[in-house]
Amino acid sequence: MIRLSRRAGDPPLYAQLAEVLTSQISAGEFEVGSLLPPEHSLANAYGLSRATVVKALDTLADRGLVVKQQGKGTFVTSTPLDRPLNGLGGFTDHVTSLGMKPGQQLLSRGEVAATEDPLHEPYRPDSRLYELVRRRLVGNTPVGTQHSVLPYEVADAIGLDDDGVLEPSFSLYARLERSPYAPRRARETLRAINCSEEDALTLEVDPGTALIEAMRESTDGSGRVVEVVRARYLGSWYVYRVELS
Amino acid sequence: MIRLSRRAGDPPLYAQLAEVLTSQISAGEFEVGSLLPPEHSLANAYGLSRATVVKALDTLADRGLVVKQQGKGTFVTSTPLDRPLNGLGGFTDHVTSLGMKPGQQLLSRGEVAATEDPLHEPYRPDSRLYELVRRRLVGNTPVGTQHSVLPYEVADAIGLDDDGVLEPSFSLYARLERSPYAPRRARETLRAINCSEEDALTLEVDPGTALIEAMRESTDGSGRVVEVVRARYLGSWYVYRVELS
Repeated sequence: MIRLSRRAGDPPLYAQLAEVLTSQISAGEFEVGSLLPPEHSLANAYGLSRATVVKALDTLADRGLVVKQQGKGTFVTSTPLDRPLNGLGGFTDHVTSLGMKPGQQLLSRGEVAATEDPLHEPYRPDSRLYELVRRRLVGNTPVGTQHSVLPYEVADAIGLDDDGVLEPSFSLYARLERSPYAPRRARETLRAINCSEEDALTLEVDPGTALIEAMRESTDGSGRVVEVVRARYLGSWYVYRVELS
Repeated sequence: MIRLSRRAGDPPLYAQLAEVLTSQISAGEFEVGSLLPPEHSLANAYGLSRATVVKALDTLADRGLVVKQQGKGTFVTSTPLDRPLNGLGGFTDHVTSLGMKPGQQLLSRGEVAATEDPLHEPYRPDSRLYELVRRRLVGNTPVGTQHSVLPYEVADAIGLDDDGVLEPSFSLYARLERSPYAPRRARETLRAINCSEEDALTLEVDPGTALIEAMRESTDGSGRVVEVVRARYLGSWYVYRVELS
């Protein structure tokens, strides 16, 4: 058992545990995106009640060092995914810039015809389109889904059916950025939704969990729509930030 | 019973009902913010199955003409509260600009000492603060809560303990704007959360309903923090919009 100080006048035990864990996180003993030991293990290791451990973890959550996810445990995150609303970049750049490891898993890809799906609305009704559906990860933890729809010839030009798209490190934005279809402007909307049964399976959370849904329509230098994407991120992981004046 | 056309080659019944309701909404027969008749009443009135009515209402929801709120019914809304993320204005101005009627109900107000509450964090630990907690309405429908914290002397200067604050039309932003403490810059964060038991009572929705939480810290021309507000809006009512380049 790891000893905390229990003399009169010492800080409360939960605060001591919070300090120990904070130091361990800062020292990199727990990797960003990884799970902290479960509450009962911490309680046993430090000779504390479960309630004291919970209070310590709440303190870390208040500091933005961890994110509690119901039914899964407590994840280390130097901060939630604090996203400035001022750039065109994608998930990969953003997560990397926060010192975390972005990842992706391809769920489906292929050609589709334009329908009444809101993701198709910016395109002409007779358009050939290409859809890419992905699960996005931080470390090994699913944090969101992304459903991208591009004009077929854009998808073709940037090689969305090649094997590189299967790589965990694949970045759609990077491919677009290096192509003649580089996004130059985008319109984005944000709203809060409850997680559907389907997304709950993908994101490994309970249905109903709060998600932030970002819909983005990107246009290239000629004003052509080159991507429409609907991203749904776990509310506990994602914070958008904006400066107003 | 109101007759829809049932001849071969006519549009499907749900589409016909969607058109009838769209015309009625456009003609102002149903006021923005009011409830549509319940599904079973529409089904009886038009001689349709409940499923057909649901499909018609889904069509209106896709067009942004109505918002379905679980357990409460279908509200008319020319569009959800589509909020451009580019200005400093408040709820009252925003809802008015959309042609809807903003309202508020005071839940509590008074002086408080600075604590570790995140709403107090931008202030010095020894600050005298003033808190104002309100429920915000569109028409008669609660759509959010706002918890504002101001320096005591700012609250005093703009008369936050006077009777005007009890009026449904009271606008905190308008008072600040006319004072020497007019906001000139703000930092805002947005995240999705599940509605707490407490907020569920205030907002008359089920606990767990997705809310968008906006935290805003406003500073005046001298850089002094003049308000910190945490707003929680129903996800079904609120959409934030931003242009990126």
